This record gives sequence, structure tokens and C-alpha cells, in this order.
Amino acid sequence: MADYPTALGASDRTTITLLGQNLADDVMGKVGFGELAFWLATQRRPSAGEVRVFEAVLAALADHGFTPTAIVTRLTYLSAPDSIQGALAAGLLGGGSRFLGVTEDCGRFLHDVLADVESPPTDDAGWDALALATVRARREAKAFIPGLGHHVHKDGDPRTPRLMAIATEEGLFGPHLSLFAAIGRVHPQVLGKTLPLNGAGVCGAALADLGLPLELLRGFALLARTAGLIGQLAEELRDPVANDIFLSVDRAARPAPPRP
Amino acid sequence: MADYPTALGASDRTTITLLGQNLADDVMGKVGFGELAFWLATQRRPSAGEVRVFEAVLAALADHGFTPTAIVTRLTYLSAPDSIQGALAAGLLGGGSRFLGVTEDCGRFLHDVLADVESPPTDDAGWDALALATVRARREAKAFIPGLGHHVHKDGDPRTPRLMAIATEEGLFGPHLSLFAAIGRVHPQVLGKTLPLNGAGVCGAALADLGLPLELLRGFALLARTAGLIGQLAEELRDPVANDIFLSVDRAARPAPPRP
Amino acid sequence: MADYPTALGASDRTTITLLGQNLADDVMGKVGFGELAFWLATQRRPSAGEVRVFEAVLAALADHGFTPTAIVTRLTYLSAPDSIQGALAAGLLGGGSRFLGVTEDCGRFLHDVLADVESPPTDDAGWDALALATVRARREAKAFIPGLGHHVHKDGDPRTPRLMAIATEEGLFGPHLSLFAAIGRVHPQVLGKTLPLNGAGVCGAALADLGLPLELLRGFALLARTAGLIGQLAEELRDPVANDIFLSVDRAARPAPPRP
Amino acid sequence: MADYPTALGASDRTTITLLGQNLADDVMGKVGFGELAFWLATQRRPSAGEVRVFEAVLAALADHGFTPTAIVTRLTYLSAPDSIQGALAAGLLGGGSRFLGVTEDCGRFLHDVLADVESPPTDDAGWDALALATVRARREAKAFIPGLGHHVHKDGDPRTPRLMAIATEEGLFGPHLSLFAAIGRVHPQVLGKTLPLNGAGVCGAALADLGLPLELLRGFALLARTAGLIGQLAEELRDPVANDIFLSVDRAARPAPPRP
Repeated sequence: MADYPTALGASDRTTITLLGQNLADDVMGKVGFGELAFWLATQRRPSAGEVRVFEAVLAALADHGFTPTAIVTRLTYLSAPDSIQGALAAGLLGGGSRFLGVTEDCGRFLHDVLADVESPPTDDAGWDALALATVRARREAKAFIPGLGHHVHKDGDPRTPRLMAIATEEGLFGPHLSLFAAIGRVHPQVLGKTLPLNGAGVCGAALADLGLPLELLRGFALLARTAGLIGQLAEELRDPVANDIFLSVDRAARPAPPRP
Repeated sequence: MADYPTALGASDRTTITLLGQNLADDVMGKVGFGELAFWLATQRRPSAGEVRVFEAVLAALADHGFTPTAIVTRLTYLSAPDSIQGALAAGLLGGGSRFLGVTEDCGRFLHDVLADVESPPTDDAGWDALALATVRARREAKAFIPGLGHHVHKDGDPRTPRLMAIATEEGLFGPHLSLFAAIGRVHPQVLGKTLPLNGAGVCGAALADLGLPLELLRGFALLARTAGLIGQLAEELRDPVANDIFLSVDRAARPAPPRP
Repeated sequence: MADYPTALGASDRTTITLLGQNLADDVMGKVGFGELAFWLATQRRPSAGEVRVFEAVLAALADHGFTPTAIVTRLTYLSAPDSIQGALAAGLLGGGSRFLGVTEDCGRFLHDVLADVESPPTDDAGWDALALATVRARREAKAFIPGLGHHVHKDGDPRTPRLMAIATEEGLFGPHLSLFAAIGRVHPQVLGKTLPLNGAGVCGAALADLGLPLELLRGFALLARTAGLIGQLAEELRDPVANDIFLSVDRAARPAPPRP
Repeated sequence: MADYPTALGASDRTTITLLGQNLADDVMGKVGFGELAFWLATQRRPSAGEVRVFEAVLAALADHGFTPTAIVTRLTYLSAPDSIQGALAAGLLGGGSRFLGVTEDCGRFLHDVLADVESPPTDDAGWDALALATVRARREAKAFIPGLGHHVHKDGDPRTPRLMAIATEEGLFGPHLSLFAAIGRVHPQVLGKTLPLNGAGVCGAALADLGLPLELLRGFALLARTAGLIGQLAEELRDPVANDIFLSVDRAARPAPPRP
């Protein structure tokens, strides 16, 4: 007989439980949405400080204007206005390696470096030494460092110092953020130029320091983006641009011969 | 020259703005995730009371255990573990008319009734009279009332009184909730039996009272569900059941002749 | 004990069956892909004539250039090149009521008219009379006729006469096509102007005449479109334009104040 | 001024072209659906033999019964019957690395081996030598060989010899199939046991021999699967099982305490 244990939602005739709590009495009206999302992902209730860092990450990732995912959601809604779920799902499907993947890639990268260290450094000098070795190794392997560099914020991504400050205020500036910050300090010595630590990367470091599952870091970026895509749809309802976007592409089409 | 106005995310070399705010300074660390989702959808900052009602709705809808959407997300992750975005998107695609649609259907239904009323009632007797006329009209049209009845919580859905209490505490018990509550009081006179006001329905009424766009009510259910599906994936990572679910179906398959 | 009968794929240690056939011996190398798709949907093997009409429909619907669905697939591939399935799925999600829905809407509409007729007409005069009554009734109800009109092919959609000719050649010009053709002949009497019968509509009529399930007419449009979207991706791989599309939208963005 | 060249669909007031052909006159009624899909992906018209091999591959991959993708499509249709596109898209999203990825992985693997060879072997002995070196190298790297082994067809996948025979008949048994066949002959010498060459793998080899783009091999598996999923939906419409599947999972759920 199959048996699927779960600590998530369950209900009987009179009661609904979620994460071992009475949903109506103990969750509704008492647990914020960011807090609940954290709790669902870890099965432990986060502290107020953890919620603040987590929600700062979600805010940092929620919307970046007319990204491919936003355009996709608007165009899908134009084509299939009867299916909000399709428009949101289509937008999320762009959350892959290139545009939303940095958060996950950076968190995993920092984690892998730390996993190879016997005991983590205890001061900035120690972090700088580890970061220097890390950047050199990547340079020799001709590999990029996830989270380093930004095509717009060339002098610094404003989200990075802000998230680091919030994590510090909450006592949650852990080894992933420490290593990431040190990479920011030392990489010019190796690369010969100064690149910004980007916001998507610092979000990955902060999520990893919160102990969230590495396999799901991209999932949190997608959760944030879901709120952003709802905002895109709400704006599209009031100031529609999707049809103009479609027409601008359609008009620029130029028939060309097949190229076998 | 195309011109797409947006109040959502924008950035230049040094600054990122979102909803007219400085993202790093004024949103990160200061605005909760539920609050931000509300703000993105309405372009106005909600009050603390509005956030509390909104987050109570999101909590009510986040996860209901092994629903079709949860099973779909787990099975898709089993098949394509390299694509978290695909697993989440697939789960959201079940958020259609049948399982997640009640929230939207109920909000729209109540809105349509209210739109036909010159001035809304001002006391319970008035609401009861409007509700009675409404239930009778639906009965005559042989139409269901969205949000009325629940296949498990036959004696009452615990989310319903709780959400009504929260809305009352916050001074946000508006016309949609008033009409829905009145339908709960009077329908036995017409239908000859007492049905519960279900939790998905009351969520729709509460969201409508918050002034959120009716076209997007299903979107908020999907936002809540995204957090739930991340919880399902997190649990699947630790206690995998998707392969057992797949095998249980596979083993029950019985080859049958085609039926033209 | 659960028991799920199926005539679709089944296998044991040595044999794979599909639709009651030995897949390797009797399907592979002997059954074309269009034929197989028809067979899967109806569980009966189509005649050569049915296959020809069906494949003509699929050809008519496969690709229309830079439609929203094509743009969405290209943009999603740009964002998440690691997930071909996500790019195709995102494109299909635009296959809703507005852009790909005409095929289904037209097939259903014709079917509903025919369902109300005791015995279908037997000559053109009879079809014209039925069509005239139908167009008049829609006009009075201020409702559009699905499949009538086209924003580009104002003087006639070239797919329409061609598909009608193919169906005639194969002896498959049935009641749905007959009624649709008659609507094409008589509607100017009622509407006071001549509109083209569009290609998506005639495809719906032809699919309905083939006896395919009405609930799945949109599914066949999506199958055709899957082939088209693969073509879009293949072209994107060789002549990428998605990033230029993204940038053209991004550059046209104009920050605007929130509008609560 | 943007300019997006395309050889795919284009239309003006009177004509529709596709791949440089007049769609109505030269494609509809003349080009089969498998042929068209090949043409769209390569921008060259395939020979009759190429179409036969290609369609045999599509048949081999179209449906395997109650796979996760099939279950997902049925469950999504149960939840959101108003959105066929959502049900199909959800099913396709399972087409990732684990269940549908073998076709792509095998094609790419064989291609990479061949890319490192100065001139390909010209007889079976030569292929066997190359295969032997290949299997040994994988063994040393503790890596699997994509396409080798099958959890059900332990004594041989019936699709494999059949597809090889069809390719031979059509003169399309090229280097990828040659290498794959040789791996089938020589691997027992290295691995100490005989594993079957599976059907998904041989499909990848055959598609690669047809010159189809490696990046899109998974796309063809998804095209085949789209037809299969339409078959699953058609069967679900007549013999619904999705609700029973959902209930069987729901009933097996066992509330467990959270595990932080």
C-alpha cells in the first residue's frame, strides 16, 4: 500500500493543517507571505531577521522591466487572455540559465568553494586569501566567476551593498556572503580590472547563507518573478503594449530565401 | 518610434527604481514580499491592514497537499530535474477553471451582482435581501453559486470565518465579503440545505474588497501556489515520492483494444 | 485495485504495442507522422484521403512567421537555452482563444448549428438557406461568425479554396465544410459587405468533417504549431534575432510614474 | 531600423509563403506533416527516404503509455479543462534530461566521438575498433554511454533493429548509426555484460545521420510526444482516469511532522 508522507497541507472535515500548524488559527493573519514561503521550503519557521533578508532578496529579483520574461508574459496574455496561468507559466519558463540563473549559479559556486575548505576563514584577511586563490583558479581554468560583472551597473550594482548591509544588521552575514565580498575586493589583482558584484549573485550568496536548499535557489528567483509578472500583467491591462511589440517585430520581418 | 511606458522596474548605470521607488534604499529591507506583490499589482502601496488581509489570503491558498498541481510539479521534476522553472510552470498550468478558479469566479460573481445594484445595502437585513434575490435567481437559472459548498469541509471551511474575522479587525470587510456572508446566511431558505462558504471563495471576496483587479484574482492564487509548489519540491528533494506515484500508475495500466 | 485501461503505448520485455499494433513491425516505417497523429486521436486508422486532408490542415497552420507564439519561443530560448522543452511549451501557451482559437471556435460553431438541424441539406440551395438563417441569427445576437474575416487577406485567404478543393478531391467535403462554404456565399446579403472565409476557420471545418474530437481541435493547431516552433528555433540558432527583439523593446521603455 | 530575416511563414494580401514555397499551391495537399517538420527544421526538402526514417523515429517516440509526461497532461487537463494548450505544455515540460533526453544525449555523444576522428572508419572492423576505444574511455571516466541499457527491454529494444533496418533500406545508415551499432557489438568485451541499445538512443543516432541540428534533437522527441499527448487527452476524454490517479495519491498521503 502506497504511503506518501508530507508535512505540507492536509485537511479533514473540520481542520486544515500546514507544516504542522492549524492553518486558520495559527498561520492566516499571523504569518507573512515571505515568511511562509521560507517555512514551506525549509520546514522550519524563520526568525524575523531571516525573513527580512529573504524578503530583501525577493524584492531585489521581482522585476527588472521589459526583460524577455516580462515580454513573454505580455505577449502570451495577448494571444491567450483566457489563461492567466499560461501567461505566468510562459514567463517563468524564461527563468533558465541565462537571465535568472545567476542567483543559483553564484550560490552553488560559493558553496562548492566552501565545501573544499577545511575550516572557513575567521577574518577578512583569511577571506581575501581564499578569494584570491579562488579567482586565480578560475582564471587559469578560463572560467567566469558567477555573479561578477554587470552589463549596466558597471560601477556597482546598488543592490549589492544594500543586501550586505541588511544581512549584517540581522547578524546573517555568513560564509557565502563573506567569500563573495572578498572576491569583490581581490579580483582586480588577478583580472587587472574592477568588476561589480552583481545583485543576482549577491542574492544567491545571501540565500545560501540562510541555509535554503541550493537546488531551489532558482526557485526563489522564480517566486519573486511571479509577483513581478503579475505586476506586468496588471500594467498590460491598463496600458497595453503587447500588440505594439508584436507589430513592431512583424513589420521588421523580411522574407529571405531558405538556407539549406 | 515605439514608446512603452512602465512604472515597474527601470535602471540606469547607478540606480534601480521600482514603482517610482529607489529599489535598494526604499524597497529592499523595508517592504515585505506580500506588500510588494500587492503594490506591483495596483501601483499603490497598501496599508498594513490591507497587507495582513492579502497575506492571509495567500496563506489560505498556498498549499493543499497532494493536489493535481502538486503531483504535476513533482512528476515534472522527476522527468526533468534540470529545469526547476519547468516543474513550477507545469504545476501552475493546472491553475485553471476547476481547482484554482473558484477564487476568481467567486470574486467576479459577487462583483457582477454588486454592479447591478444602485446603492449597496447598509445593514445585514439589506444584504440578506440582496443575497436572497441573488440565490433565487441562480436557482432559477439552474446555476451554481461560486464559492458555495466544499467536498471535504461539509460543516464549514475553517478558513472562511477566520478570513472574515481578519478583514473585520482591519476594517476591510467590504461589500463583496458582506454579500458573500449574507449568501451563507440565507441560501438554506432557497436550496433547502446548508452548504459551507468555501475558503477559495471567501478569498476571492476578500481580494475583490481590497480593490485588486478582477482579471488577476486567479493570478494571486497562482502566486500563493508558487510558494506551495516550491515547498512540494523541497519535500520531494528530501522524501521523494514522484517515482512511486509514477510506478503506481504504470503498474495499474491495463492494455485495452482501441475503440474507434 | 486501480485499473487504467489504455489502447496507447504498452510494452513488455520483448514487445512494444501502440494502438494494438506492434510498434516496431507495423508502425515504424509504415505509418506517416500525420497518419499516426490522427490514429492516436481517434483510435482508428485513417484512410489515405483523410490523411491528405489532415496533413493539409497541419501545413496550413504550422507557421505564420513572427506571431506572438514564435516571438515567445525565440525569447524564451534566449533566456533559457538549456531547456528546449521550455521554449516550445512557452510558445504553445499562446495558443489560446485569440490567435490559435479560431480553428476550434469555427469547428464548434458549425457543429452546434448542424446539431440543431433535423436532417442536413442535400444541395447548395439548402445549405444557402441554412447559412442565411445562421448568419441572420448571429447578426441579431450581435455576435461574430467564427472564421469569417481576415485582417490581412481581405480579398480571400488562399488556404480556403485550396483546402476545400483537397477535401473535394478526397470525397471528404462534409456538412461542416458545406455550411462554411455557404456562409461564404450568403453572408454579404446580410452583412452588406463581403468578408473572406479565413484559413484557420476552414481548417476547423475540415477537421470536424474528419470526425476528430471537437474538444481537441485546438490541439491539432498546437501540433502543427509545434513543428513551426521547431522551425523558428532552428532559424534562431542560425540567424538569431531574439536579442535584438528584446533590446528593441528595452530601448523603447519609458519610465512612467505609478498610476494607483 | 530593425530587420529580421526569415525563410519561414510570410504573407501579403493575396499570398502566403512558407520556406519559399506557395503554401496553398505547393505545400498543402502535397507535403506530408513529417516531411514539413523536417523541412522547417533544416530549410531543405528531405528525400522520400529521409522522410521515412524521420517518421519512423517520430513513431518510435510518440507514446509510451502512462509515462510521467502523460500523467501530467491528464492531471493538468483535469484541473484546467479550459486550456488544452496548458495540458500539452505541461506534459512537454517533462521532456527534460531524464525521460526524453536520451535521444539528444546519444546523438550528441556519438557526434562528439566522430568529431574527434580524422576520417571515419570504412568497415565494421574499423567501427568496432573505434567503438572499443570509446567504450573503454567512458569506462575509465566512470561515465555511462547514452543509449546503452533499458530498464524493461533487457534483451533488446525492438525499435533498435527495426530503425537500423529502415535506415539501411533507405541508404541512410551513416556514421552515427554505424558507431552506435558497433558499440552494441563490442561493449560486452569491456563491461562484462550485454546491454541493449535502446530505442531512444538509436533515434538520436538516426536523427544525427539525417543531418538534423543537434541542438534540436530533443525538439523532435517533443514533436513526437505532442502527438502522443493529444492521444492521451483523446483517451482521457472517453475513458477518464486522471481523477482516479489524483485520488489514489491523495488517499495515500500521510501527514508527517515537519523536518527542519
